[in-house]
Amino acid sequence: MSKTNRRRFLAAGAAGTAAATIGAPAFAQGKRTLRMVTGWPKKFPGLGAASDRIAQFITEATDGRLTVKVYSAGELVPPFEAFDAVASGTADMYHAAEYYWQGKTPAFNFFAGVPFGMTTAEHNAWIYHRGGQELWQELSAGFGVIAFAAGNSSCQAGGWFNKEINSIDDFKGLKMRIPGFGGKVVEAVGGAAVMLPGGEIFQALQSGTVDAAEMAGPWIDLGFGFYKAAKYFYNPGFQEPTSAESLGVNLELWNSLGKADQRVIQLAAATENVMNPADFIANHSRSLDVLLKQHGVQLRAYPDDVMVALGKATGPVLAEAANHDALTRKIYDSYMAFLREVSAWTTQSEGAYLKARALVMAG
Amino acid sequence: MSKTNRRRFLAAGAAGTAAATIGAPAFAQGKRTLRMVTGWPKKFPGLGAASDRIAQFITEATDGRLTVKVYSAGELVPPFEAFDAVASGTADMYHAAEYYWQGKTPAFNFFAGVPFGMTTAEHNAWIYHRGGQELWQELSAGFGVIAFAAGNSSCQAGGWFNKEINSIDDFKGLKMRIPGFGGKVVEAVGGAAVMLPGGEIFQALQSGTVDAAEMAGPWIDLGFGFYKAAKYFYNPGFQEPTSAESLGVNLELWNSLGKADQRVIQLAAATENVMNPADFIANHSRSLDVLLKQHGVQLRAYPDDVMVALGKATGPVLAEAANHDALTRKIYDSYMAFLREVSAWTTQSEGAYLKARALVMAG
Repeated sequence: MSKTNRRRFLAAGAAGTAAATIGAPAFAQGKRTLRMVTGWPKKFPGLGAASDRIAQFITEATDGRLTVKVYSAGELVPPFEAFDAVASGTADMYHAAEYYWQGKTPAFNFFAGVPFGMTTAEHNAWIYHRGGQELWQELSAGFGVIAFAAGNSSCQAGGWFNKEINSIDDFKGLKMRIPGFGGKVVEAVGGAAVMLPGGEIFQALQSGTVDAAEMAGPWIDLGFGFYKAAKYFYNPGFQEPTSAESLGVNLELWNSLGKADQRVIQLAAATENVMNPADFIANHSRSLDVLLKQHGVQLRAYPDDVMVALGKATGPVLAEAANHDALTRKIYDSYMAFLREVSAWTTQSEGAYLKARALVMAG
Repeated sequence: MSKTNRRRFLAAGAAGTAAATIGAPAFAQGKRTLRMVTGWPKKFPGLGAASDRIAQFITEATDGRLTVKVYSAGELVPPFEAFDAVASGTADMYHAAEYYWQGKTPAFNFFAGVPFGMTTAEHNAWIYHRGGQELWQELSAGFGVIAFAAGNSSCQAGGWFNKEINSIDDFKGLKMRIPGFGGKVVEAVGGAAVMLPGGEIFQALQSGTVDAAEMAGPWIDLGFGFYKAAKYFYNPGFQEPTSAESLGVNLELWNSLGKADQRVIQLAAATENVMNPADFIANHSRSLDVLLKQHGVQLRAYPDDVMVALGKATGPVLAEAANHDALTRKIYDSYMAFLREVSAWTTQSEGAYLKARALVMAG
């Protein structure tokens, strides 16, 4: 047991029963407080609410046997260090996005979002029923963490620009805040990708440190005031047709929990995996209305040929990531095989339905 | 307390502590078994698995304090009587689809699926964040039930036909198994709608009692063998762009539970509300492949003008339902207002993304 973990175990013992230091089953009798670090600022709309609800669900469903205390980004550790904090036992769990850890291995990106990749519904199908969760556990266990899908800001907007994007050449020299594989694609078409936590984007955009930025979509972006610094809002994006959040738990802690507590944590994560995307969908539409009508934002869509060019640049980015190591290759293969299979279905099912409904509503 | 409920309470007392008959809090100490009736046959793919997982989740997360026993359709009561069984206390909970209770009031249909209505993601946004759940509780409380979204077979296929649908006139005289508001729309364009539980469809289709039938989509429909009785498979449908399942609980029982047990039941329902649609998406695609390549099924889509005609017939069907009573009107108003708002967003977000991805994948 690491020094940090021992401290945590002793602290838990003090809060619960004195027997808590002698072994895992004793914890089931006592009460303990779990520290959740997150990737977002305090009261961050959508994402912060999701962290708070997960904490509330676990606390209530265990009748306080597990009490989760939430720390916003920077309170305990900076947002991009949340994973290491949980791996080392400095914190017990994180609520964040897996591409934050892409510096360790690009394999993490497949559990957050992939350019021209799966939608939210498809991603969940892969995670829950086509081997995604098992691969994720294999990946995270190597770092002493176990993680679960725990929210999703769904299909991301293209983001904020100070100029129109009329051809793929307009990305040349563009400095854009865009994380994960999306950033690599922007670099492949001649731009520069910048990785910044949500709370630092506005200043970068306003000061000209970046020329463009994507964060999530109208709801979140309105709250951050990006419209004050950029005029053109592009929708949809290519970079994250799904943008999953995750609940990571220190693996040693996880293994010390009883089956009921493990199940409650899984249920809380999965519940947020449906309630959180619903929150985004519930709020994007009216926020877009405010952006367009009250703040004079100009709504744009990437032209088809720009989308196709970005798509052509995506293939090599993903293939290069797969070359990183054997496990990333295994995850890439699984992801791409299911993407090919499921995308045909979604296009002829929900895609065709949305087209028909738009026809009907216009008529 | 009704006679049936008193029997149930006494039975619970016998299984738990003798004090269980004197009041609600005593239940928290004891163990009790809850009977879940469902709307589907034993081992029914997708839906039956969802019922079983909900039971497992509740049992595990409460460490057996609540043990849920699942009864498939007909084991305890016939599928369409599941609601009354729970309302009267003959059963403790049901896992079914709300349009099964449309005979009581058409208001129930809005919590299952509506022709040319919300998609699964939109429906969840309405339920969780835009007043849907509160309206649902108001509706169900009138019958002594509380219900939660607990699964979704998502965007339904158009179904199985023995002839091609080339114009709206091809619905004239057509006897089709299609429940809920979709059935009313088929009647509005000159067909006859038949309501049958899943387990009785194949025989009706094979014997010619119905000319056409929609159930869910390739996965479930393959299992039922509909391809042996009809040649043309239409996708997508107009009738249920989402098809939600629900977990209903006897309200008196619900109010007798402690807060932790109530929270666990809500988490189990919500978890299945993401795991179950994922199961359908994970399986439809390869099942469609089997249908087309191994069973010679002919895949078709309704022509645009048929969709538009069905859409025109839908408006009056929904408006007539709203006239049924004041609460149905209130639910209709809430549903339609959010549908108008959210559909514009989804079309320009996920709808446009799916179009762009199809372009990229074809290129």
